[in-house]
Amino acid sequence: MDFFNTILVEEAVNIIKKEFKDYKLGYEIVDLNDAYERVLYEDLVSNQSVPEFDRSTVDGYAIIAEDSYGASDTIPTILDIIGEVKMGEMTDIVISSGKCAYVPTGGMIPRGANAVIMIENTEKMDDETLLVQKPVRIQENIIKRGEDIKENEIVIERGRKLNPAHIGALASLGISKVKVFKKPKVYIISTGDEIRGIEEKLEFGKIRDINSYSLRAQAQKSGLEVVGNTIVKDDFNQLKAAIEKGLEMSDIVLLSGGSSVGERDFTKEAITSLGGKGILAHGISIKPGKPTLIANARGKLVVGLPGHPVSAITVFMAVVEPFIEQLYSLKTLKPAIFAKMTANFPSAPGKDNYVFVNIKKENGEYYATPKFGKSGMITNLSKADGYIIIKIHEEGVNKGDLREVYLL
Amino acid sequence: MDFFNTILVEEAVNIIKKEFKDYKLGYEIVDLNDAYERVLYEDLVSNQSVPEFDRSTVDGYAIIAEDSYGASDTIPTILDIIGEVKMGEMTDIVISSGKCAYVPTGGMIPRGANAVIMIENTEKMDDETLLVQKPVRIQENIIKRGEDIKENEIVIERGRKLNPAHIGALASLGISKVKVFKKPKVYIISTGDEIRGIEEKLEFGKIRDINSYSLRAQAQKSGLEVVGNTIVKDDFNQLKAAIEKGLEMSDIVLLSGGSSVGERDFTKEAITSLGGKGILAHGISIKPGKPTLIANARGKLVVGLPGHPVSAITVFMAVVEPFIEQLYSLKTLKPAIFAKMTANFPSAPGKDNYVFVNIKKENGEYYATPKFGKSGMITNLSKADGYIIIKIHEEGVNKGDLREVYLL
Repeated sequence: MDFFNTILVEEAVNIIKKEFKDYKLGYEIVDLNDAYERVLYEDLVSNQSVPEFDRSTVDGYAIIAEDSYGASDTIPTILDIIGEVKMGEMTDIVISSGKCAYVPTGGMIPRGANAVIMIENTEKMDDETLLVQKPVRIQENIIKRGEDIKENEIVIERGRKLNPAHIGALASLGISKVKVFKKPKVYIISTGDEIRGIEEKLEFGKIRDINSYSLRAQAQKSGLEVVGNTIVKDDFNQLKAAIEKGLEMSDIVLLSGGSSVGERDFTKEAITSLGGKGILAHGISIKPGKPTLIANARGKLVVGLPGHPVSAITVFMAVVEPFIEQLYSLKTLKPAIFAKMTANFPSAPGKDNYVFVNIKKENGEYYATPKFGKSGMITNLSKADGYIIIKIHEEGVNKGDLREVYLL
Repeated sequence: MDFFNTILVEEAVNIIKKEFKDYKLGYEIVDLNDAYERVLYEDLVSNQSVPEFDRSTVDGYAIIAEDSYGASDTIPTILDIIGEVKMGEMTDIVISSGKCAYVPTGGMIPRGANAVIMIENTEKMDDETLLVQKPVRIQENIIKRGEDIKENEIVIERGRKLNPAHIGALASLGISKVKVFKKPKVYIISTGDEIRGIEEKLEFGKIRDINSYSLRAQAQKSGLEVVGNTIVKDDFNQLKAAIEKGLEMSDIVLLSGGSSVGERDFTKEAITSLGGKGILAHGISIKPGKPTLIANARGKLVVGLPGHPVSAITVFMAVVEPFIEQLYSLKTLKPAIFAKMTANFPSAPGKDNYVFVNIKKENGEYYATPKFGKSGMITNLSKADGYIIIKIHEEGVNKGDLREVYLL
């Protein structure tokens, strides 16, 4: 048994992060139309102030604030209307005491003015005369040049996964080509004599190749590019050749299967024979998740995931995803929902336990119900909405506990 | 002013949903490798039981439970070991009273046996003799045929956005081609004489075409396929031709811009001239969001969004997204985070107010801070993490309130 050799999930993550801390993805330049959900490679620094000039935030009249002091409905201030600022046009109007000019929302504040009085608080006597019926403060209803963004200010940080608002911000700054991280490439190998292709007829005792598909989707979800996948028999040379091909094509090689002792042994051997630091760790205290192998082959990360599909997904989420976040310098929040547990769920200590749950929303609150599937089959997992993590030192969760649920 | 004609967000959503309730997307068949994040078109019904036979959930010995009753460390039950079940193989072993057979985790339960005793609770005297040191209940450590999934049971519902677990479940059932909803197609038109292409030099007072980019990303986020986009001047014939082209190519046409009265008038005219029910509504009680136009042209949805980029995104999320969910029969949860407000935020009644916030996680709790950007510029929005909705009847949020935050 590997029991005494297992390491904590956090240790496994740290081993990978440390070992590959200098591994660089590099960048590529993509068209802004293709940049959605890509990860920004460099801080985006504004080459301009936003707004580029002082603007009005309301429809109203640009005035000198002091002129309005003491104004009221009964004793209005009377000002001369000397012009009108047009939307999207420069103005050469200059406001001095006793004078005002109409400014639409977003319009440029004319020189001399230091406030805008809302149209609702004025009355126009005729084309040249305005009654101001309320005082305004200095700078009221004005957004100053650079108030949103100063020139040379960081608008979007490196490591942000670009959302629609980011894309819009890039467009507003006139940026049509974006420097984004190259997607980490991954090659997926399913191993085992018992594995059959999805369209092959399944004799009794054989297993379909599930992991090629579910890990591909999981990798896509994490922002990886799957460059290929293959199924190999329990054969040292085939396995070695497959890993070698994977290392040539990609940044990360994922193996799944090989849970028997013999298979694990020659998986280790195959990895070691390829050069690099070799095996870094094997066995992680996680449930579900049979023995996992972490290795450095030729300077690249190789992870031997469990063959069991639910375990493979779980270990990927626990151990590989944090490394991808490091590769991307990722700063974007991973959405999680706080939900109330609807039932007790005991957890044997000694392992981080990933418990799959269904979520319901009732009266504005979320409720999570653990899925009690004995088998841990992928068909059962596919009915779950998300998962909670019961940490190694916890004895389980209690009904009513508020837990963080990560969506699948 | 359109103020008195504005309708509630819910009304706008219902008008669209009702008007296009019979609008059908149709389906397409995609390879399982391309099915991630597509929406399932038909309930997926299992053509088999999972598991396909009674299996052991532990490494142990298949026995007749009654044989173990009363067994203890000091007075063990002695059983004959009559064989071993191999993983992934059928077995013809038959267990009768006094007999047992080794079964690995996942192995088939031999006929006659009704429980599995864990290996930890036994001691093997020799190859043919087992000491059982603990009683087991009937059915203990056995998962019955069909316990996870019964034949003809629905495994994944129509309207589910396929996640990695779903993809794995499909693979496990041998399904390599999946029937998914066709993506709704959308055509995006930016209107206005002042709009400039992203790479054009920007003279003073002109505005970059932001919405073509941000709405494209927002549409992609919602599962739409953007089939094209164009910029048109404030010209009736150009606009009409563009909408006509959009209607030919897509399911939904989005216009943005045209906020001046004259522009809005000929937008309405252009839509009406194309046939169909014409204008269904205009003006929605939403902030940010200047006048919005909802129409049926030639049986398809045309939405005139505000030209202001933040407003355009907001109205899209509020009004167009719910319709897309209807088109897809979408059943998947929209992730939202409950967060504590760190500050008061007053909201003028009369409108649903979409307030953009930053989220921080501290001591296992989420906190949301409203962004006080006077300008409502897209560059400011791009610094937000998500948004809360202050409903029309609310006067704002208070510091300490727990609010649902939708991620951008």
